[in-house]
Amino acid sequence: MAEVVHMIDSEVFLAFSTYATIVTLKMMLMSPLTSYFRLTRKAFANMEDTSLDMSKEDKKKLVRVDPDVERVRRCHQNDLENVIPFLVIGLLYALTGPQLSSALLHFRVFVVSRFCHCVAYLAPLPQPSRALCFVVGLLSTFSMSYRILTTALYL
Amino acid sequence: MAEVVHMIDSEVFLAFSTYATIVTLKMMLMSPLTSYFRLTRKAFANMEDTSLDMSKEDKKKLVRVDPDVERVRRCHQNDLENVIPFLVIGLLYALTGPQLSSALLHFRVFVVSRFCHCVAYLAPLPQPSRALCFVVGLLSTFSMSYRILTTALYL
Amino acid sequence: MAEVVHMIDSEVFLAFSTYATIVTLKMMLMSPLTSYFRLTRKAFANMEDTSLDMSKEDKKKLVRVDPDVERVRRCHQNDLENVIPFLVIGLLYALTGPQLSSALLHFRVFVVSRFCHCVAYLAPLPQPSRALCFVVGLLSTFSMSYRILTTALYL
Repeated sequence: MAEVVHMIDSEVFLAFSTYATIVTLKMMLMSPLTSYFRLTRKAFANMEDTSLDMSKEDKKKLVRVDPDVERVRRCHQNDLENVIPFLVIGLLYALTGPQLSSALLHFRVFVVSRFCHCVAYLAPLPQPSRALCFVVGLLSTFSMSYRILTTALYL
Repeated sequence: MAEVVHMIDSEVFLAFSTYATIVTLKMMLMSPLTSYFRLTRKAFANMEDTSLDMSKEDKKKLVRVDPDVERVRRCHQNDLENVIPFLVIGLLYALTGPQLSSALLHFRVFVVSRFCHCVAYLAPLPQPSRALCFVVGLLSTFSMSYRILTTALYL
Repeated sequence: MAEVVHMIDSEVFLAFSTYATIVTLKMMLMSPLTSYFRLTRKAFANMEDTSLDMSKEDKKKLVRVDPDVERVRRCHQNDLENVIPFLVIGLLYALTGPQLSSALLHFRVFVVSRFCHCVAYLAPLPQPSRALCFVVGLLSTFSMSYRILTTALYL
């Protein structure tokens, strides 16, 4: 019993909180970035987002797809698909009581890989840089999943 | 040690559970709403979703993009991009042991902002009503992130 | 106090960890599956993803939309929209201290429904098989939400 309490109070859990918050903030910043690209590229998703002093015809022209906006949105979507699983798996992993050094390694590798992924996607850097960042993040999450399933399997 | 247990058992955690469940249910209800619009607008994403007693040609015509369906889907996507970070950040925030009044303020502001965002998106209300709801929700999550990083930073 | 600790240490929480990890891994495997379809169908989202020894004209032709790729992506999106709410609601539900048998029923029904949903989407099986899997998963999550709100309501 004391063991469990120790886990939540532990440095592993503090480290998880810190890295989870950082990577979630990074993911959330993709929303304002999308808005920024929509405004500068003048490519909106809704009629009501265009400025008020325009004719209906002009407004319709601004509801369009822009390649730069779509790139940011794909990057955001990839974050949703990878960061959120990390947050859940990371939380459960932190509760299995891993070594602090091992946990820090997993969290740091994942967070760094996602920042690099974002740069590689938006620059864009030539492949396979983006694919590599993606795979490194995936492997970190898989490795934590493996630990959860080997220490706490209950089907 | 007793402190940590207190946190999970506390009114802050109960409040988080309540508001997190409500806002998650709201987000999940976007799925049936999308189905409803797909059925009434007769705009499907898959061939097999169209009714059975139709020729292949007629079916193909129903696999199309409808502006109302896309609006609901964008609203759902915006929920995914904002509600899920709130759920993770809110959980970690609740574990940092904040004042009950402060926690309730954060949770209530966020949940109300998301309901208003949904109404503003689907009505649609003229801007900047939707943008305002979005920003208020974002600020609530950022404020909780700030508290996590200032009370529990461990890099 | 002892009660709360018991909850986190309990078989219910172990069961949640196990099923949450399994269904998260399933969701994450949609990413490599999308890549696989993109490579075999030669339908990419970014110019830099196409092979290097091509003229710019040929590359542009490969940045296109393919129905099979889109199907996998819709399946992945549906997972995001349903699995993530389950992960959050399931965690809070596990902390309300439900009966082990009841919790296992919820977790198993949900996880099986999502695997069936994936098969029904990708095969694709005729409707209403996919709709049925979707609704069963939704009901499991709604039932857990009901328990959270009835045992721990704090507005």
